[in-house]
Amino acid sequence: MDIQAIATQCKDAAILMSALSTDIKDKALKNIIKALETNMDLIIDANKNDLEQARKDNLDAPLLKRLKFDQPKISEACDGIASLIKLEDPVGKTLSATELDKGLTLFKVSRPIGVIGVIFESRPDALVQIAALCLKSGNAVLLKGGSEASATNQILASVISKAGVDTGLPEGWLGLLETRSDVDQMLKLEKYVDLIIPRGSNEFVRYIMDNTVIPVLGHADGICHLYIDRLADPKMAVDLSVDSKCQYVAVCNATETILVHEALAKDILPVLKKELEAKGVKIYGCEKTGDIIDVEAATEKDWQTEYLDLIVSIKVVPSLKEAVAHINRYGSGHTDVIVTSDKKRALYFMDHTDTADAFWNCSSRFSDGFRFGLGAEVGISTNKIHARGPVGLEGLMIYQWRMIGDGHMVKDYTGEAAKPFTHKSLNKDF
Amino acid sequence: MDIQAIATQCKDAAILMSALSTDIKDKALKNIIKALETNMDLIIDANKNDLEQARKDNLDAPLLKRLKFDQPKISEACDGIASLIKLEDPVGKTLSATELDKGLTLFKVSRPIGVIGVIFESRPDALVQIAALCLKSGNAVLLKGGSEASATNQILASVISKAGVDTGLPEGWLGLLETRSDVDQMLKLEKYVDLIIPRGSNEFVRYIMDNTVIPVLGHADGICHLYIDRLADPKMAVDLSVDSKCQYVAVCNATETILVHEALAKDILPVLKKELEAKGVKIYGCEKTGDIIDVEAATEKDWQTEYLDLIVSIKVVPSLKEAVAHINRYGSGHTDVIVTSDKKRALYFMDHTDTADAFWNCSSRFSDGFRFGLGAEVGISTNKIHARGPVGLEGLMIYQWRMIGDGHMVKDYTGEAAKPFTHKSLNKDF
Repeated sequence: MDIQAIATQCKDAAILMSALSTDIKDKALKNIIKALETNMDLIIDANKNDLEQARKDNLDAPLLKRLKFDQPKISEACDGIASLIKLEDPVGKTLSATELDKGLTLFKVSRPIGVIGVIFESRPDALVQIAALCLKSGNAVLLKGGSEASATNQILASVISKAGVDTGLPEGWLGLLETRSDVDQMLKLEKYVDLIIPRGSNEFVRYIMDNTVIPVLGHADGICHLYIDRLADPKMAVDLSVDSKCQYVAVCNATETILVHEALAKDILPVLKKELEAKGVKIYGCEKTGDIIDVEAATEKDWQTEYLDLIVSIKVVPSLKEAVAHINRYGSGHTDVIVTSDKKRALYFMDHTDTADAFWNCSSRFSDGFRFGLGAEVGISTNKIHARGPVGLEGLMIYQWRMIGDGHMVKDYTGEAAKPFTHKSLNKDF
Repeated sequence: MDIQAIATQCKDAAILMSALSTDIKDKALKNIIKALETNMDLIIDANKNDLEQARKDNLDAPLLKRLKFDQPKISEACDGIASLIKLEDPVGKTLSATELDKGLTLFKVSRPIGVIGVIFESRPDALVQIAALCLKSGNAVLLKGGSEASATNQILASVISKAGVDTGLPEGWLGLLETRSDVDQMLKLEKYVDLIIPRGSNEFVRYIMDNTVIPVLGHADGICHLYIDRLADPKMAVDLSVDSKCQYVAVCNATETILVHEALAKDILPVLKKELEAKGVKIYGCEKTGDIIDVEAATEKDWQTEYLDLIVSIKVVPSLKEAVAHINRYGSGHTDVIVTSDKKRALYFMDHTDTADAFWNCSSRFSDGFRFGLGAEVGISTNKIHARGPVGLEGLMIYQWRMIGDGHMVKDYTGEAAKPFTHKSLNKDF
C-alpha cells in the first residue's frame, strides 16, 4: 500500500478507535502483551538481524545498545503496557456540563485527537510504548522507526497490529511507514494526520517542525538553566548544579547554563568549579566568571548551545531580572531552575520566565513524565498551545461539545421576545 | 517601527503582561472604557473618513454596515469590556497539585500563551473586543484590521494602547499592523508570535493557514449537516431544518446539507420542501431526493460547498452509518446535528462523527460562544488540538509546571537505593 492509502485507512480506523469501549481497549492491550510474549523468539531473531547489520554498518556502541531488543527489554515493554491497562480511560470524561435552558444541555466530553503520526529513531521499545498509548487513548497511529531497526519494527508492528485487530480493533489502526520518503509523504498529509510526535535528535525534530503544517508535539532543544540567586543556600546551589548538569548529561532536561548572581559569585564559583570538575565537567565562563575562576572563555554561541555532554557554561549576572532576561533570550522554554531562599524572588522568577517547567530549589532533571507522576509519557513539549512540558495521555486528547435538546431552535432565543439562557453549571456526567 | 521591531517589543511586553495582577488588568479595562468614551468624537470622525472613502470605493452595503462604528456601537463595545471585567481572571489557576515526595511539590498553573496575532476584516468592534480579551487573559497582541477601516483602527489602537500603558501595562502590549505586507511579515515571525487568530472570509482564513507555521486558531469552512434519522419526530425534524438553515444564512454554523434517512424520505421531503421554499430556500437534491420532490440535481460539488446563502443540498441516505460516513467525508468538523428519538442512535452519531459540535435534537445555530455561556468568544475552532468548537478565554491560555523543592536531587531517586515517589494528589492551590 502507498502512504496515502495507509493514511486513509488509518483515518477511517481512527473514527472507530474513538468509539471503542474501555473494555475492548484493555482487552486489546492484554492481547498485545500475550502476542509479544508468544512471538518473543521471532522478535529477538529479527532484532539480531538488525543488530548484525548495524555492526556491519559500524554503528556507535550507544546506538547499538538502544537498538537491542532482548528478552528483558521485551518484558519491560510488556510491564509498561500492563501499567497502562491500570490507568483510567481518558476518553469520554465529562469536562463540563451546562444547562442553556430547560431541556437544553451542553456537555464538553473528552475525545481522542484522531490519527497520531509518530516518528522515532532506533529504540524499538518506543514503538511498543507509543502504539499502546495511542490505543489506550482511542487514537489510530502511523509509526515510523529508525531504518536500522526495520526488521524489529516490522515484526513488532505486525504482531501488535494483529493482536489488536483480533480483539476487535479496526484494520489499519496501526500503520507502519518504512522509509524516509514515507515520512516526507506523511508530513504533507495534513488532511489525514492530526498530530505528529517526533522523538529523536534535535536536528531531526527541527527538520520535522520545519517541513509540515501538521501540529507537532515535542521539543527541538532543551537549553535548560539553573540560576543561583543572591539569596541561595550555597551548598544547595552547588548540589543542585551538579545534579542538574551531571546526573545524566545526554538528555533534554540536563542543565546547560548556570547563571550566578554577582553578590555570591566570588564565594560560590570556586566551589562550583571544584565540584563540577570532580565530575569531569568542562566549564566555559563569561568574562566575570573568568575573573574569579580559571575557565575557558564563553562566546555568544555557548549561550545558544545544548551541549548534551560534560560541558557547562557559566555566566555572572547582576540581578534576578537579568537572569530572567538571559533565560528568555537564550532558553528553549523547556526547564529552568531558581535556587533561592526567598519566596518573592522565586515567584518573580516563575512569573517572568517563559518556560514550560519553572522549578524552585530542585534539580532540572525532575522534568519528566514518570517523575511528574503522569503515568505514561508521550513526550516533552515546548509548544505554547495544547500541551506544555512533560505530556501524559492527556496530550493525545481533545474534546467534543455535545448538546442535547428537545427540538430547541435559535429563533426562540433572538429578537424582541427572546427567551433568556440560564447558563447554569451542572454537576452531571454525559 | 518595522514589523520585526513591533513584534520584538510585543514579545517583551508579553512577559510582563503574563505577570500582571488581576487588579491592574481590570483597572486597565476600566480605563479603556473611559478612554473610548472620552475620545468618542475623534473615533466617530475617523470612522466617518473611512466610511466616506469606502463609499467612494463602492463597497457593498453589508460591508459599509459592518464598517460603521458610531455611538451605539462604541457603547456596545464598552459594555462588552465591562462584562469581561466581571469574569474570573483565567491566569494563575492551579490546575493540579501533586506531592512527588516529602517537601517536593508539583503544581500545574494556568498561564497566558504569550503573543496573539489577530487578523480581522472590516468590523472595528472586533479590534476592541480582541484587545480586551487578550488583556484580560494576560496576553500581548498584534492586531491587523481591514484596510477600509484603517483610520478607525488607528485611533482605536492608539486610544486603547495608551489607556493600558497609563494604567501600568507595558509599552507595546498592543501592536497595530497596517498593511497586507505587514501581515505577510508577521506570518513568518514564529519566534515572536505564539498563536494566530484570523477572523474573516473562508478564503482569507485558508490563506493564513496555508502561509504560516504559527498555530492558527479558527476555521476555514463551516459545512454543517443536519441528519434526519429514521426515528426522528417529523415535525421537529422540519422545524430544526428550517432553523438550522434559515435563521441566519451568512454564518458558519448555518446548516448546508440535510441528510434524510430513506425510511421517512417519502413522507418528510415534501413537507421539508414546502417549509424551506416558504423561506426562499433553493434546494439541490441527490437522485433519490429528485425522485420524490421536484428539485435541481445536486452534484459532487454541492456536498463540498458552504453556501452561506438561502441554498441547501439534500441527500437521502440508507442508514445512520452512511449519514455519518457522508459527514466525515464532506464535513468540516464544525457542527453536525442528528434528529432522532432514539438515544442509542444519537450516541452512535456523537461517537462516530468527527466534529467539534455534535448536537442531538437542537439547531446547528446554537454553536456559538455566547450561547454556550463561555462569557466571551475568541472564535470557533475546527482544530483537533488545543481548542475545538466555540472558544472562550481558555483558548488564550496554556499552563506552566511549577515545582517547589528543598534541594531535591534526581540522583536520590535513581539506582539501587532509589527513594520512591509518593505521587500523591493534593487539594492545594499554588
